[in-house]
Amino acid sequence: MKPWGIFLLLLCLQAFTDAVIGQSQTCPADENASRCDEWEGEFFPGIDKIKYEGPSSKNPLSFKWYNAEEEILGKKMKDWFRFSVAFWHTFRGTGADPFGAPTKYWPWEDGTNSLQMAKRRMRANFEFINKLGVDWWCFHDRDIAPDGETLEKANANLDEVGKKKVLWGTAQLFMHPRYMHGAATSSELGVYAYAAAQVKKAMEVTHHLGGENYVFWGGREGYQSLLNTDMERELNHLARFFEAAVAYKKKIGFNGTLLIEPKPQEPTKHQYDWDAATTANFLRKYGLIGEFKLNIECNHATLSGHSCHHELETARINGLLGNIDANTGDPQVGWDTDQFLVDIQEATMIMLSVIRNGGIAPGGFNFDAKLRRESTDVEDLFIAHIIGMDTMARGLRNAAKLIEDGTLSELVRKRYQSFDTEIGAQIEAGKADFDFLEKKAKEWGEPKVASAKQELAEMILQSVL
Amino acid sequence: MKPWGIFLLLLCLQAFTDAVIGQSQTCPADENASRCDEWEGEFFPGIDKIKYEGPSSKNPLSFKWYNAEEEILGKKMKDWFRFSVAFWHTFRGTGADPFGAPTKYWPWEDGTNSLQMAKRRMRANFEFINKLGVDWWCFHDRDIAPDGETLEKANANLDEVGKKKVLWGTAQLFMHPRYMHGAATSSELGVYAYAAAQVKKAMEVTHHLGGENYVFWGGREGYQSLLNTDMERELNHLARFFEAAVAYKKKIGFNGTLLIEPKPQEPTKHQYDWDAATTANFLRKYGLIGEFKLNIECNHATLSGHSCHHELETARINGLLGNIDANTGDPQVGWDTDQFLVDIQEATMIMLSVIRNGGIAPGGFNFDAKLRRESTDVEDLFIAHIIGMDTMARGLRNAAKLIEDGTLSELVRKRYQSFDTEIGAQIEAGKADFDFLEKKAKEWGEPKVASAKQELAEMILQSVL
Amino acid sequence: MKPWGIFLLLLCLQAFTDAVIGQSQTCPADENASRCDEWEGEFFPGIDKIKYEGPSSKNPLSFKWYNAEEEILGKKMKDWFRFSVAFWHTFRGTGADPFGAPTKYWPWEDGTNSLQMAKRRMRANFEFINKLGVDWWCFHDRDIAPDGETLEKANANLDEVGKKKVLWGTAQLFMHPRYMHGAATSSELGVYAYAAAQVKKAMEVTHHLGGENYVFWGGREGYQSLLNTDMERELNHLARFFEAAVAYKKKIGFNGTLLIEPKPQEPTKHQYDWDAATTANFLRKYGLIGEFKLNIECNHATLSGHSCHHELETARINGLLGNIDANTGDPQVGWDTDQFLVDIQEATMIMLSVIRNGGIAPGGFNFDAKLRRESTDVEDLFIAHIIGMDTMARGLRNAAKLIEDGTLSELVRKRYQSFDTEIGAQIEAGKADFDFLEKKAKEWGEPKVASAKQELAEMILQSVL
Amino acid sequence: MKPWGIFLLLLCLQAFTDAVIGQSQTCPADENASRCDEWEGEFFPGIDKIKYEGPSSKNPLSFKWYNAEEEILGKKMKDWFRFSVAFWHTFRGTGADPFGAPTKYWPWEDGTNSLQMAKRRMRANFEFINKLGVDWWCFHDRDIAPDGETLEKANANLDEVGKKKVLWGTAQLFMHPRYMHGAATSSELGVYAYAAAQVKKAMEVTHHLGGENYVFWGGREGYQSLLNTDMERELNHLARFFEAAVAYKKKIGFNGTLLIEPKPQEPTKHQYDWDAATTANFLRKYGLIGEFKLNIECNHATLSGHSCHHELETARINGLLGNIDANTGDPQVGWDTDQFLVDIQEATMIMLSVIRNGGIAPGGFNFDAKLRRESTDVEDLFIAHIIGMDTMARGLRNAAKLIEDGTLSELVRKRYQSFDTEIGAQIEAGKADFDFLEKKAKEWGEPKVASAKQELAEMILQSVL
Repeated sequence: MKPWGIFLLLLCLQAFTDAVIGQSQTCPADENASRCDEWEGEFFPGIDKIKYEGPSSKNPLSFKWYNAEEEILGKKMKDWFRFSVAFWHTFRGTGADPFGAPTKYWPWEDGTNSLQMAKRRMRANFEFINKLGVDWWCFHDRDIAPDGETLEKANANLDEVGKKKVLWGTAQLFMHPRYMHGAATSSELGVYAYAAAQVKKAMEVTHHLGGENYVFWGGREGYQSLLNTDMERELNHLARFFEAAVAYKKKIGFNGTLLIEPKPQEPTKHQYDWDAATTANFLRKYGLIGEFKLNIECNHATLSGHSCHHELETARINGLLGNIDANTGDPQVGWDTDQFLVDIQEATMIMLSVIRNGGIAPGGFNFDAKLRRESTDVEDLFIAHIIGMDTMARGLRNAAKLIEDGTLSELVRKRYQSFDTEIGAQIEAGKADFDFLEKKAKEWGEPKVASAKQELAEMILQSVL
Repeated sequence: MKPWGIFLLLLCLQAFTDAVIGQSQTCPADENASRCDEWEGEFFPGIDKIKYEGPSSKNPLSFKWYNAEEEILGKKMKDWFRFSVAFWHTFRGTGADPFGAPTKYWPWEDGTNSLQMAKRRMRANFEFINKLGVDWWCFHDRDIAPDGETLEKANANLDEVGKKKVLWGTAQLFMHPRYMHGAATSSELGVYAYAAAQVKKAMEVTHHLGGENYVFWGGREGYQSLLNTDMERELNHLARFFEAAVAYKKKIGFNGTLLIEPKPQEPTKHQYDWDAATTANFLRKYGLIGEFKLNIECNHATLSGHSCHHELETARINGLLGNIDANTGDPQVGWDTDQFLVDIQEATMIMLSVIRNGGIAPGGFNFDAKLRRESTDVEDLFIAHIIGMDTMARGLRNAAKLIEDGTLSELVRKRYQSFDTEIGAQIEAGKADFDFLEKKAKEWGEPKVASAKQELAEMILQSVL
Repeated sequence: MKPWGIFLLLLCLQAFTDAVIGQSQTCPADENASRCDEWEGEFFPGIDKIKYEGPSSKNPLSFKWYNAEEEILGKKMKDWFRFSVAFWHTFRGTGADPFGAPTKYWPWEDGTNSLQMAKRRMRANFEFINKLGVDWWCFHDRDIAPDGETLEKANANLDEVGKKKVLWGTAQLFMHPRYMHGAATSSELGVYAYAAAQVKKAMEVTHHLGGENYVFWGGREGYQSLLNTDMERELNHLARFFEAAVAYKKKIGFNGTLLIEPKPQEPTKHQYDWDAATTANFLRKYGLIGEFKLNIECNHATLSGHSCHHELETARINGLLGNIDANTGDPQVGWDTDQFLVDIQEATMIMLSVIRNGGIAPGGFNFDAKLRRESTDVEDLFIAHIIGMDTMARGLRNAAKLIEDGTLSELVRKRYQSFDTEIGAQIEAGKADFDFLEKKAKEWGEPKVASAKQELAEMILQSVL
Repeated sequence: MKPWGIFLLLLCLQAFTDAVIGQSQTCPADENASRCDEWEGEFFPGIDKIKYEGPSSKNPLSFKWYNAEEEILGKKMKDWFRFSVAFWHTFRGTGADPFGAPTKYWPWEDGTNSLQMAKRRMRANFEFINKLGVDWWCFHDRDIAPDGETLEKANANLDEVGKKKVLWGTAQLFMHPRYMHGAATSSELGVYAYAAAQVKKAMEVTHHLGGENYVFWGGREGYQSLLNTDMERELNHLARFFEAAVAYKKKIGFNGTLLIEPKPQEPTKHQYDWDAATTANFLRKYGLIGEFKLNIECNHATLSGHSCHHELETARINGLLGNIDANTGDPQVGWDTDQFLVDIQEATMIMLSVIRNGGIAPGGFNFDAKLRRESTDVEDLFIAHIIGMDTMARGLRNAAKLIEDGTLSELVRKRYQSFDTEIGAQIEAGKADFDFLEKKAKEWGEPKVASAKQELAEMILQSVL
C-alpha cells in the first residue's frame, strides 16, 4: 500500500538507462552520488549563449531568423512569442516509446529521483533556458518533484523545487494507475478527490512560482468504450471539477488564465476535449465560457482532422485563444509525435492568427515538442529548440510581410464587398427576413458569382516565403 | 442569363443514360413520350408487398427480422423506426461518381425532367414505399420538381408535385454553381438572398405536405482554404440565416422540428457543421440552442473521426437528438459512400441510444443510402432497403434483449456506485470544494480502482447478437 | 558498459507495480522471495478447465461457440484454428502505455526478473493454456528469459526456460536502445551483427522447443525520416540478413516456416514490411519468395488501409498465407490497439479465406491481443481469450454455413461466366492479342453489363450471421 | 443500343454550363455556331508569353523562379522538368464534383462536342502551352475527340484531332458505364475485349503523335467488395491484358515507355495498383518487371499513406521511376483533390529524388492538377500553372543548393560509415553468415549507437528553403 511507485519507476528507468547505455557518466548512481549533488560547473560546457547570426550563418548553434529584440509590427520578437521550454520533454523525456526502452542519457542525471536530483535538474533547466535566451518554462507537478509515499509527502517535495517564473503549470493526472479511468471523470469517487487535491496543490505551486496560466490537459478524461461508460455522468463530474477549480483560483488570488488543452484521442479512444469547438460547447453548456481559454496544440489539431490554423481561428473567433503548444505531427502518422515544427508555411499561417489576435499574452509559445527518440546528443536539445524558434520567427517575418503588403487581405475584403452595402448591413444586423430576401432575390435575378482566386491567394502567400 | 440549366442538365443526363445503356425502354425520350405520361400500370410489376417471413426465409424479397406491427419494449417496430425513403438517392440517383457517368436505367424514366415526368416518378415513389411498407419519405426541392428559368417558375413547379406526407424536406443549396462559395455563407449577398428565398419556399412545401421536420445540410457552408475566407463573418451570416428561418417557421405556423445535419467535409475541405459538438457550440454561441435539433448520419459520424454511437450519444446528452440518417461508410474509405448499414453490432448500439432517448419521433430513420453504382437491377432497390430495415430491426431486437437482460446496465451502474453515496451526491450537486476534497483524499489514502471489465462488456453484448 | 539493462528495467517495473498497486501479494519482492520459488499451488485457483456449454450459457468462463473436438467441414475446430497464446501480452503485458505506468498486478509475480521468476511464470503460462484448452503458445526471446549482462549470459538464460512445444518463436529486436535505428537495417554494423546473433539463438531455441514456425517482425526496420536515411542500402542489408537466416535454418535442420509479419508503421514512421504486397515485392526482388510466408495481423491490416480480409486474400493469392495474428484495432484510432477481435462478420470473412486456403497449418491463430489497460482482474485474462476464441468459432461456423449453402459462391461464379467459354479460355491462356480482341469488340458491339448484386451478397452473408 | 452517349453527355454538360452561367459568349451554341468554327483570333487575348521576371516580381503572370533556359547542375531547367499540361483538367475540366454541377465557362466553348469544337479546343490548348512556355501535353482518348456511336466512329474521330507531340497518352477506361466493373478486370468478357480495342487505338494515336510514353491508370481495376469478387482471377486477367499491350507496342514499333500509375482507391474501394510497391509486386509476379515503369502522382502517394518522396524513392529503388504527376492533396482530406503543388519543402524533396535518378526523361512532370471548382476566371488557368511551375523550380534550386553544399549527404554518409569497412563489404556481398556474425558480436560487446541527428538534418534542409 505504498504509493511511492513513480519515484521507484523513475529511479529504475534511470538506472536502466545508465546500465544499458553505459556511457561514462559524471554522476554515477551507485557510488559517490554526493559529488553530483555538489555539481558546480556548467551543464552545457561547450555551448555559449545562442546568438542571432542571420540567415547566412552555417553555425547550427546560432539563430538565423529569431532576433529577440528586433521589432516586428511594433513589438519585439520575444514579446510576440514568449517562448517557453517544456520541462517534461526536455528534462524528463527518456526516448521510451510503446515498443522501446529509454535512449537518452544526460550526464547530469545520477539515476535517482531524489530531491537533490530534482534540484540539480532544475539548475540544468535554468542554464538551458538562459543559454537559449528564453524567458519561460512549463511544468507538470510530478516531473519537477519526486512523488511521495503519500499526498502530503508529494506536496512537500513540490515545495522544495522550482523557484523561477513559469508560463504555466499543470498537474499530471494520467500516468499513475489510479487515473486509469480518468481523474475528474473517473468512475471512482476517491480518484476524483485525489485529483482535486493534486490540482489544488499544482495551482498553489504555479501561483507561488509567478505562473501566468494554469493548464488542464485531460489525457484520461474520455473513454475506451461506450459500452461500459456513462458519458453524461462523467461530463457532469468534469464540469463540477472545473467549477471547483475556478472557485479555488479566486480563493487564493491567482489571476492567471485557466487553459484547457484539446486533444481528440490518445491515450483514450475518445477524449472529452476533442477539439476547440467541442471544448467551447462544453464550456458554454456548463456556463464556464468566461472562465477558461484554450491551449491549442498543432499536433492535436491535425489528429482531430483540422489544420493548426483552423483550430487557432476557431479558438480566436470564440474568444478563447490563450496559448499555443508549438509543435507538429507527421501528416502520415495517426498518433502524437510532438515534433518540433519546421514547416515555414504552417508557421506563417499560425502567426497570421496570432497577429489578428493582437498577440497571445499572457499566454505564449510553449515547445511541447521532443527530440526524436534516435537523437541522443546533448547538443540535439539546442539544435531542436533553435530550429523550432527560427521556424516560428520566419513565420512571423513572413506574416508581417503579408500584412504590410496588403494584397492578400485586399483579396479577401473584395470577396465580401457585396455585404459592405446597406442591405448587407441590414442582413448582418439581423433585420432581413425571408420575405424581404425573397423579394430582393426575385428583383435581382440570377446572382453573379466571382472566382474565389484560391491559386492567386496561394501565389501571394508563397511570395513571402 | 438563362437559369434553366439544371433542367437541361438532368434532361441530358437522362438522354445520355438512355443512349448509352440502350436497353429497350417503355418510355422513349424521342418518340411517343405521351405514352409515358399515361403510364397506368405498376412500376414494379413482379414485386408484391414485402412481407415478414422470419429469419429462416430464403426469399430476398421478404423481411426476416422487421415485423412492423410486432411490439418491442412496449412499442411497435414501425413506431420505433418511422422508416423513410430518400427520394434523391432512390429515384434521382444515377450512379454517377467523380470518375463515372450514370449507370442506372429505370424503365419509368423518359429522359426528360418535365413536370409530367416528375409526377410519374412520384407515383413510382409512392408505389415503392407502399410495397416496402414504409410510411414516410424525404426530399430535396430540386429533386422532386424541375428547376425553372426563374425562381418564380421553379417555385411553381414545386407546387405541382408531391401531395403525400413527408418525414422531412430540405432545400438543395449545393449543386447549382451559384452556390459554389456557399449559400448562407456565400461571399455574395445575392446568393444569400437567393438561398433564403429557396429555403422559404421549401419550408412552405414541406409544411404543405405535412412534413414533421425540416432539414438543413450545409454542403457548401464551409471553406476550401482559410487563405481567402473570412470564417468569422461567414459564421455570423449563417447565424442570421438560421434566425430568419426560425422566424419564418413561426410566421407560417409550421410546428415541425428544424434539424441541422452535421458533416465534417466533402464537398468542402471544412464544413461548418463539422460534428454534433461543433454544431451544438454554434447553436449555443448564437442563442439558437432551443430552436434546432440534429439529424445524425452514421457515415458523417465516422468521417469526423467518431463512431455513430458516439455522435448519437453526444446529440442525446445535449438534448439535440432529432433524426437519424441510417447509413454507413466504408471504414477504409475517406469519403461519403452512403451505403446501406448491414452491421448488426453497430445497429444494436444505435438502438441502445434511441431507446435511451425514448424513441426518436417526430424524427425517424431516413435511408440516406444509395445502391452501389454497380447495382443496376430494379429489384436491387428493394433488396437494399430490405437488408437495411432488417439490420435495424435486428439491432432493435438485440438492444431490447440487452435491456431486458440487465447485465450490461448493471455492470455500468456498479462502476459508478461510489458516486451513489452522500459525498458523491455532494460532488454532483457542486457542493464539494477543493479544500473539502483534499481533506478527504488525505483521509482516504490511495484509492482503490476496479477493473473496467471491457472484455466482459463485449462478451455480454455479443451474447445478444 | 553493462548490457543487463532490460533485466533491471523489468525488475524495476515490477517493483514499481508492486509498490503502486500495493495489493497484498503472495510473493513479495523484498522479503521471503524463496517462498515464491516454491510456489506449488495453482496460479488460477478458482478457475477450472473452460468447457463448451453452448450459446445459451450465461457463464463467462465457458465457451458458447468453440467446441474443440466438433467437426466442421471435415476437420475438428481445434485443427482449423491451432490457437496460440501470446506470452508477451498475456504474461509480460503490464498495461503501460505512452502516457501511463503499468496497471497489471498478477499475484505470481515477485517483482524480479530472475530465472526463478521466469520459470514460475512459464508454469503459470502452461496452466493457463491447459485450462483454456489451447495447445500452443508464442514467445519473444527476451520475454521468456532474463536478458543477461552479455550476449552469452542472455543466451544461457534462454536455455533454462521453456520446455514445451511452441507455434512460433521470435527475437525481440526493437525494445533495446541498441536497436533504435533498426536491427538488420541499423546504420551501425555492430548492431547488425548483434541482431544476427540474437536471431541465431532464438531460432535455435524455437527449434529446440519444437516450434513449427519462426517469425520476423521488423518493428524498427524502417525509417523516421528519409532525410537522414539511405533506404536502398538498408533494404539491401535486410535482404542479406534474411538470406543468412534461411541458410542458418537449413544448417540446423529446422523445418519450420519462416514468417514475416507486415506492419505499416509504429514505432517507425514507415516500416519496410508495410503490408502483404510490399513484403511480397521485397521477397521477389531479392529472390527470397520461396523461403518465407507471411504472418497477417488484422490490426496491422487496417492500419495499412486494408481490410483484414484483403490482406489475407493478398497473401493467399501470392502463395504466402502462413499464420494469422488474431486481433483487431479500433476503426477510429490510428495506432495499434491489439484488441481481441469480437466482430462476428469480420471473423466470418477471415474464415472464408482460411477455408479457401485449405487451413493454415503449420501456422495457426495466435492471439496477439492484450487486455485493455483498465482490465485488471486475473479472470479478465480468461474472459478475453474466451470471447476471442468464441468469435473465431462463430466465424468458422458461419463460413461453413455459407459454403454449404452455396448461394454466395454461385453468385460469384455467375458474374464471371462469360470467361468460362472458349474465348475466355483463350484470353486466360494468354492467346488473345489486341488485333483479335478488337475484331471481336467490333463484331459484338456494345457489351451487356450485369448488376454486381453487392447488396444481395451482403444479404446472403447476413443470413448466416 | 447507341453508344454515342458520352458525346451527348458532354454536349449537354456544355449546354448546361452555357445556360446556367449565362455569360456572354463568343460562340453561342444555338446560333451562328459556324462563326466559332472559324475562330481566328487568340484564345487568351490579354495574355502574352509568360516571362521569367525573378523573385521580386509582383506580376502574377510571370515566373519568379522558373527560368527555362537557366542551367542547374549542368542541365537546363526545362530539361529537368519536361513540363506537360493535362488536357483533361485544363480543357475538359468543368468544375463538377459529386455534389455540384459545372462552374467553368471558357469563351471558346460552343456547347457542343463536335469535331470542329474538338479541333478548336486543341488550338486553344496549343496557344496555352505556347504562352506558358511548355513543350508537352498529355491526353485521354475520349477527352480530345468525341466518342462515336460505334467503336469505329470513335476511332475515326480520334484520327482527326491532335497533330502535335505529346508526353503521353492514355485510354479513358473508367467513365463509361460499360466499365463499371473494371476494364481489363471486368467480370464481362465483352468489356475486356472492348477495352483492348480502345487501348490498341489509343496506343496507335499516341505513337502517331510522337508520344514518348503511354500510361495505364486503372481507375476501375479493383473492387468495391470482396464478397462478390474473384480477386485472383481478375488479377490474372489484368496480367494477360498487360502482356498483350506489350506485344502490341512491339508490333507497331512504338518505343515509348509503358507506365502504370498507382492509386490506392477512388473510385473503387481498393484499386489493384495500390501504390508503387504493390504494383512492383504485380509486375514481378507476372514477369512484366522489365516492360513497365511507374507514373508516380503525389496526391495518390499521400492517399496510400506515404509521402510523395517515399513513393518516388520506392519507384527509383525498384528501377521503376518513369514519370511524375505533379500535384498534391489536402493533408486533412481523404479523397483526390488534384491541387497544384505549392509546398516548397515537398517540391525540394521531390527534386532530390529526380536528381538522384539522373532526371526523369523520357518521362516528365505532368500537371495532373485542376483549378479549384471556385476558380472560374480564364487567367486562373495561367496563375495555377505558373505557381505550380515556380514551386517545382524552387524545389530544383533548393535541391541543387543542398547537393552543392554537401552537408546533408555527408551527414547520411557518416551514419553508415561502419559498413564502409572490410566486414561491411563482406556483409553487403552476402558473405557473412550467422556463425561469423555471432562470433563478431561476442567479440565486440555492446555496440555503440550514434545520434540520428534528424533535427540537424531538418535544419540543414531549411537552410536552403
